[in-house]
Amino acid sequence: MAAGNFAGVLVPVLTPFTPEGAPDAARFAAFCRWLLSEGADGLAVFGTTSEANSMSPQERMALLDHLIASGVPADKLMPGTGACAISDAIALTRHAAGHGCGGVLMLPPFYYKGMPDDGLYAFVAGVIDKVAAPALKIYLYHIPPVAQVGWSLDLVGRLIHAYPDTIVGLKDSSGEWQNTASLLERYPGFAVFPGSEVFLLDGLRKGAAGCITATGNINVRGIRRVWQNWQGPQADALQAEITTLRKAVQAYPMVPALKRVVAHFLGDPNWAFVRPPMVPLGEAQSAALLADLKKLGFTLGERRQAA
Amino acid sequence: MAAGNFAGVLVPVLTPFTPEGAPDAARFAAFCRWLLSEGADGLAVFGTTSEANSMSPQERMALLDHLIASGVPADKLMPGTGACAISDAIALTRHAAGHGCGGVLMLPPFYYKGMPDDGLYAFVAGVIDKVAAPALKIYLYHIPPVAQVGWSLDLVGRLIHAYPDTIVGLKDSSGEWQNTASLLERYPGFAVFPGSEVFLLDGLRKGAAGCITATGNINVRGIRRVWQNWQGPQADALQAEITTLRKAVQAYPMVPALKRVVAHFLGDPNWAFVRPPMVPLGEAQSAALLADLKKLGFTLGERRQAA
Repeated sequence: MAAGNFAGVLVPVLTPFTPEGAPDAARFAAFCRWLLSEGADGLAVFGTTSEANSMSPQERMALLDHLIASGVPADKLMPGTGACAISDAIALTRHAAGHGCGGVLMLPPFYYKGMPDDGLYAFVAGVIDKVAAPALKIYLYHIPPVAQVGWSLDLVGRLIHAYPDTIVGLKDSSGEWQNTASLLERYPGFAVFPGSEVFLLDGLRKGAAGCITATGNINVRGIRRVWQNWQGPQADALQAEITTLRKAVQAYPMVPALKRVVAHFLGDPNWAFVRPPMVPLGEAQSAALLADLKKLGFTLGERRQAA
Repeated sequence: MAAGNFAGVLVPVLTPFTPEGAPDAARFAAFCRWLLSEGADGLAVFGTTSEANSMSPQERMALLDHLIASGVPADKLMPGTGACAISDAIALTRHAAGHGCGGVLMLPPFYYKGMPDDGLYAFVAGVIDKVAAPALKIYLYHIPPVAQVGWSLDLVGRLIHAYPDTIVGLKDSSGEWQNTASLLERYPGFAVFPGSEVFLLDGLRKGAAGCITATGNINVRGIRRVWQNWQGPQADALQAEITTLRKAVQAYPMVPALKRVVAHFLGDPNWAFVRPPMVPLGEAQSAALLADLKKLGFTLGERRQAA
C-alpha cells in the first residue's frame, strides 16, 4: 500500500467558540500555529475532541479555509471529513483534497446502527469515486465508544485491498489495545495511530505510526518525548509520565476539561466555551482539575529538557 | 401546554433516490400525495425511515421546497429537523417554520454519548431561541435504539415547562411500552405518538395522539382502521391484523424491505435504491418478503371496507 503523509504526534485540535456560539476562526488559527510551534507533527482538525460534529459542514469548511489562508501548511492537516450523509462526506473530502491537505480522517456514517460492512464499504467507495482526487489519502477513524459504528478488521483489509493508494491509515480510538495490535499485525505498513497516548509506547514497539490524541492539545512536548525516545532507556519512564497526565485529565469530561485548561493557562476565559450538547466544566470541577494538574507540576507549553 | 397540530396516523415517508444516488424529488412528491390520498393524517418526512441522516441539510431543504411547491399542504408536514450540529438544526427548523409546516420532529444531537440533560436542554433552547418563530411546534423524537441518545422523562417535563407553546409532543420509538405509558401518565395533553403501530391501540386507550410508523408507507389504510375504530368492538381484531403485517416486514431490514415492497407494487425498480450505509434487500430476501406478504393477502393501497 502507499505510504501515508503523517507520523508522530498529531493533535485533534480543540475548536474555540465565540460568546455567541460561532466558531472562532482567529483563535482557532492562532492555537493551531502554537501547536505546530510546540512540535505537533500534524493537526487532525475536526475530530471528536474538536466538536466537529457540533458544527455544520459549511462551518468546518470555512474554518479550514481560514486556517490555510492564515499560513498553516495544508500538508500538516488531516481534517475530519466523515459524516452520516455521503453527500456531506463527499463535500468535506473534496474541499480538503482541493486544499492539498496531507490526508483526511474519516468517521463511518454513524446514525444507522448494525449496517452491514457492504454498506460501509459502499460509503467509502462512493466518496473516493466522487471526489476522484488521485492524491487523496484517507485515514479511517475508528471510535466505537462514541460513534457506535466502527471499521471492522476485515473491512479495513477489504478497503486497503481495493484502494491501496488511498486508504493509508487508521486512528484507533476503540480503547482496546487488542484491536490496535491486530491491525498492526494484519496490515504491516498501514499507518495505525492509537487514539490515546496511553498506548503510544506499546504501539511504537509494534510498528504504530505515532498517535492522535486529545491530550496533545495541552501536552505535545511531553508526548513527543516518548515519540523521540521510544528506543532509548528512558522510554518507559517518559511513557509513565504522559499516562499519568492523561489519566488526570480524563477523570473529567475530556473536551470541557481540556478547554478549561487552555482557558486558564492562556488567561482567556472564552476558550472554555463549548457547543451544546456539551456543557462547560463547573467551577468546582475546574478548580479540582487545575489542582490535580498543579500537583503533577503541569504547565501549558512548558519547555523542559527532553530526557 | 399548547395543543399540537397533529393526530392520527403519520407516515415517516421513504425517500426515493435516482440511479445516480440523488434524492428524487418528483417521485418523492408523488408518493407523498399518494399517502395523503390513502388517508395519512400527516407526513413525518425526513425521519429514520426516510434515510434523512443520509442526506445533507441542503438536500433535505430542497426536497421540502419541492414538496410544498408541488402542492402538498405544509400543515400536513412534520419534517425531521434534528441534527448533531446545532447550526444545522437551526437552519432546518427555521426553513420548516418558514414554510409553515405543522410541526417539526427533533432528534437530539446524537454523536456525543453520555451528554448531560443540561446539554440537551441547551441544544433545544438554542434552536427555539434562534429560530424565534412563535408558531413553531416541536415534537421530540425519542429513538434510543438508533440514536443512542434520547429524551429522558425528566428532560421532557423540563422542556414542556420552559416552552409550553412550542414543545407539544413526542414520537416514542424506544420500543418500550413502559416509556410511552409513563409519558402519557406524567404529561396529560402532551401529544405522544408511539413509533410503531404495534402500540397503537394500547396507546390510544391511554391517551396517545396516534402513531408515526414506518409501515405506514405501505399500510396507511389498515392502521387508520384501528385509529378510526379503537373504541369499537373490532378494535382488538383490527390491531392484531396490523401487528401481524408489521412483524412480517420487520423480520427484514426495515427501510430496504419497505422500499422493495413499494418498488414491487408500483412496478418501479428505482424505488428499491437506498443510500449507503444501507444496502438494498438481496433477491432471495426480496422474494421471501413478498411471499410472506402474499400469504397475508397484502396489496399496496388495497381498498377494503373499514370493519
